[in-house]
Amino acid sequence: MVLGEFDLIERYFAQVGASPSVKLGVGDDAAVLELPAGHVHLISTDTAVSGVHFLPDAAPNVIAYRTVMAAASDLAAMGANPEAMLLALTLPEANADWLASFAEGVRSASEHASLPLIGGDTTRGPLSVTVTVLGSAPPGHYLTRSGAQPGDRLCVSGTLGDAAAGLFLLEIDDTSVSAADLEFLHQRFLRPTPRLTLGQTLNGVATSAIDVSDGLLADAAHLARLSSVGLTIDPSAIPISVALRAYPDPAQARDWALRGGDDYELLFTLPSHAILPDDCTQIGRVIAGSGVHCDGVLNITGYDHFGR
Amino acid sequence: MVLGEFDLIERYFAQVGASPSVKLGVGDDAAVLELPAGHVHLISTDTAVSGVHFLPDAAPNVIAYRTVMAAASDLAAMGANPEAMLLALTLPEANADWLASFAEGVRSASEHASLPLIGGDTTRGPLSVTVTVLGSAPPGHYLTRSGAQPGDRLCVSGTLGDAAAGLFLLEIDDTSVSAADLEFLHQRFLRPTPRLTLGQTLNGVATSAIDVSDGLLADAAHLARLSSVGLTIDPSAIPISVALRAYPDPAQARDWALRGGDDYELLFTLPSHAILPDDCTQIGRVIAGSGVHCDGVLNITGYDHFGR
Repeated sequence: MVLGEFDLIERYFAQVGASPSVKLGVGDDAAVLELPAGHVHLISTDTAVSGVHFLPDAAPNVIAYRTVMAAASDLAAMGANPEAMLLALTLPEANADWLASFAEGVRSASEHASLPLIGGDTTRGPLSVTVTVLGSAPPGHYLTRSGAQPGDRLCVSGTLGDAAAGLFLLEIDDTSVSAADLEFLHQRFLRPTPRLTLGQTLNGVATSAIDVSDGLLADAAHLARLSSVGLTIDPSAIPISVALRAYPDPAQARDWALRGGDDYELLFTLPSHAILPDDCTQIGRVIAGSGVHCDGVLNITGYDHFGR
Repeated sequence: MVLGEFDLIERYFAQVGASPSVKLGVGDDAAVLELPAGHVHLISTDTAVSGVHFLPDAAPNVIAYRTVMAAASDLAAMGANPEAMLLALTLPEANADWLASFAEGVRSASEHASLPLIGGDTTRGPLSVTVTVLGSAPPGHYLTRSGAQPGDRLCVSGTLGDAAAGLFLLEIDDTSVSAADLEFLHQRFLRPTPRLTLGQTLNGVATSAIDVSDGLLADAAHLARLSSVGLTIDPSAIPISVALRAYPDPAQARDWALRGGDDYELLFTLPSHAILPDDCTQIGRVIAGSGVHCDGVLNITGYDHFGR
């Protein structure tokens, strides 16, 4: 089935979500967004490419959901209120079934992350998705990667390594993992939950924050670099889920927790007097110096799409 | 030469343009933009794909310049003040020469369109570029595609067909065109100039506007559809440049003016009492009804990336 571009866009993406901030959505030369008085805009863009970020035959609703949530997670890391998103979709052919599934993923993510779709572009070409998200915050009130101070506590939300385990377990048939654990780990990869509410709670409290998308060690290295500090991590303090703790290869589970990406938890630094929010764990300290120091772990560096 | 992703981004894109609105640029989870009090945000995103929107061996600075300017043209069509842009670049390999040229195009476009680069994403994959532009306007004061009223005059800025001719003449060796005309037409394709100042002039005056990116007839059809009106175009009134008038095949020149894309002029409707701005031409009328009516021209429809 071949549909025209405008049919496609109108059919699947014209009305996904709504918000009083959105004055004009999909269909004109640009969308129009009006924020609460005096608020600033926070904007981030993320691209997912077939064969790099997802397999060419990945379920379209999963591609859509994960790409939107990965972008939304950047807003969480800034402590922003989600406002809206734009979606640029490049696809080799206009297949109605594929698009219906993709649109379902967009719709579901839009709802869960409170991000109405206000614009986009559909082009023909190798499959890729670029999501631009917009959030808001009161002026000067947002979290950055650059505010960590020696003496702060280094903390993380939720548990780490689940998404990497889930991805691995989607690709192989491992009968040693229980059905319930398998389902939990799969969902942690397939349906990530950006920590938008926690980000807003930390706004004005934490001294710095980043979302864990490249893996704990890699994202900690970004935070250390941008804040011009060192970070120590106590490997025994890293929060690991019941499901991942049950994994038969503990060394592998520990490596996923240290290096696995896609958990979309928040890594943040708290002044020593601040109260640790629910479902968060202190895993280390901010120190003077540079780099990330984690007992028994070597080769700590950021994930690099173009590195060797 | 292989560079790490972060090296790349920092080396080429960290500081492209500046503006008092930009509170935080490239390098954190999101960029932060603060608008003049009470202003709304206008946002648009545009993707250009290798082999679809440009040839795989196109000069990187031209790819960058044209993609940014195409996106900026959407802001012009809304009558917005340009504020900032984000750039998502997907490329098969990190070649320093290619990137240096691409960055030069970004820098030049950023300067000409007053759009500081505040964020982006660099990923590995088939070459494509997605540019998201942000503009501002006072609340309720922006141009849309949907306000044309029967009785309004249909007008266009500049001249049409030049970019299509320029693209054609880049690909063949036509000795019948003078060197000066060739240079003019080439530049109209290679270095488009979004009508940002004109858009702001028309803001509050014109009843509707769209930029001519798909071609006059196609974009007129969008305007007619979104405004629920008909449009008549007098083909003899269409403004054609001296260089294009000199083209040895007048029928081809006329077709470029009617159907050629990429001119990035503004097509707009003016109430009958409003003064026509400099460098603009009335080419028709808004009528009750639907569709675009142009004497002697058949098959008027929008350009469609997925059409047959």
